[in-house]
Amino acid sequence: MKLTILGCHSATPRINTNPTSQVLEINNHIFLIDCGEGTQVELRRNKVKFNRIKHIFISHLHGDHYFGLIGLISTFRLLTRETELHIYAPKGLKELVTLQMKLANSWTNYQLIFHELTSHEPELIFEDEKVAVYTIPLDHRIYTNGFLFKEKPGLRKLDMNAAIEADIDMAYFNKLKQGFDVENNKGKLVKNETVTKDPPEPRSYAFCSDTAYNEKLVNNILGVTALYHEATFLEKHEKLTIPTKHSTAKQAASIAKQANVGTLILGHFSTRYDNLDLFKEEAQTVFKHVELAKDGKVFSF
Amino acid sequence: MKLTILGCHSATPRINTNPTSQVLEINNHIFLIDCGEGTQVELRRNKVKFNRIKHIFISHLHGDHYFGLIGLISTFRLLTRETELHIYAPKGLKELVTLQMKLANSWTNYQLIFHELTSHEPELIFEDEKVAVYTIPLDHRIYTNGFLFKEKPGLRKLDMNAAIEADIDMAYFNKLKQGFDVENNKGKLVKNETVTKDPPEPRSYAFCSDTAYNEKLVNNILGVTALYHEATFLEKHEKLTIPTKHSTAKQAASIAKQANVGTLILGHFSTRYDNLDLFKEEAQTVFKHVELAKDGKVFSF
Repeated sequence: MKLTILGCHSATPRINTNPTSQVLEINNHIFLIDCGEGTQVELRRNKVKFNRIKHIFISHLHGDHYFGLIGLISTFRLLTRETELHIYAPKGLKELVTLQMKLANSWTNYQLIFHELTSHEPELIFEDEKVAVYTIPLDHRIYTNGFLFKEKPGLRKLDMNAAIEADIDMAYFNKLKQGFDVENNKGKLVKNETVTKDPPEPRSYAFCSDTAYNEKLVNNILGVTALYHEATFLEKHEKLTIPTKHSTAKQAASIAKQANVGTLILGHFSTRYDNLDLFKEEAQTVFKHVELAKDGKVFSF
Repeated sequence: MKLTILGCHSATPRINTNPTSQVLEINNHIFLIDCGEGTQVELRRNKVKFNRIKHIFISHLHGDHYFGLIGLISTFRLLTRETELHIYAPKGLKELVTLQMKLANSWTNYQLIFHELTSHEPELIFEDEKVAVYTIPLDHRIYTNGFLFKEKPGLRKLDMNAAIEADIDMAYFNKLKQGFDVENNKGKLVKNETVTKDPPEPRSYAFCSDTAYNEKLVNNILGVTALYHEATFLEKHEKLTIPTKHSTAKQAASIAKQANVGTLILGHFSTRYDNLDLFKEEAQTVFKHVELAKDGKVFSF
């Protein structure tokens, strides 16, 4: 699982900072999460192959989270993309993109499939054999979802020596990997756990931006490997979190602690701060495993 | 008259090139012309004060000419702008921007005034004491206008020595500057041209992007100081100008020659070309005074 931060600042693009966008590579998928203005350039800068992006997840319709999307959709057409593209976003985006295309007398050569989100409960929005993606309802000024990316448990690992010693025919190895007990060549039942090992712990990533501090979030992200939680403000500006429905670093850390996550990644920093190290310092008074997002930074889990 | 090129490439933004946008400073105005994705960052890079932009001219609703506009409008609000903003653009943009604001549950603190363009004839769209701006109908795949920025003739220059020698009272000097003949202290009529000189030649700038080669353009840009004319293609790709309704460098030069302009600036280069010098070479086989636009380049006239 590899997470590339394309942009992690609030508000609008500046010469050296970008609004929210990130790329999650998980089990051979390249998921694009949010798409602020300039994302297509950051994708190029970070050498992400455009054609491998098949699913784009948009948290909410504030500009710093999606103004780069229409440009990307247009670019895909110019590059004669044929691969279908799925967009998971709040209701309204489809109408907007359709209007923009109508005004440009334009279209897409590829299938553009909108999955319009309206639910205020977590829902499964994508699934294949290895990965599932759920929405995480967030508490912001407009309808907003975070996204939970979960690997499914893999096959059990066969202990080859133990299996041979137990005299099990190769034909049963797949059944063993799937967790079943099997009979050996002598007709004796062999317990699965004596010849297999647990698969690696499935990894999971929760993206939560933008949101006020809200403990309802905790249950939806329990034990994730990594949590990206917005931290727009430092503690001295905590009162700004109320009208804006954003969070402080310390509030993000409190959520991380209650949810017992592996690593907390902070982002969506207000552009008023020069020294971002303070975000880490303040968060670490509550929760130890804190990282700061940074444009261009890559996290591997 | 100072022209700053923010972006001059066709299609979409890349790491080192930007789509169309330029800033024209003329008689204390800062006019923004087109606004491709990333324009707000380029404005910052080129140190253009956001608050001085009061008029934005959008040629047409292909994304590489306006996808940066909504971000700029949002940024203006975040910066608590109070100055009103006029946008001159094809009909449709107002509906789009209004929908985007509705979806974000957002607004502007400043007055946002749309001047929706629909005419296929040149029309006066802005005027004050010193400058007038006209549309220039262009020939593209969708409804498109260029823009003609014209200084008005200034006051005549008083030849102070000649005026004193002619025994004219100071009270008449303003009348002289306005071009009138006046009586001197002895009651004798003094011809204006004997005590004044012509004002500097009014300067003018024509922005013409995007357009197919079309000689109807010539009459609308006769004798301009500088003409920006798109040159998407080199001659070897001339056949592409027909379906795309773009021009070659040589076609742009032919328009410049017929219109007897001062300087031709080429831009809107297709990103397929590495060596842009060829655009200048090909154009100069037809018209001598050719310059190449370049992101960040400043032209003074």
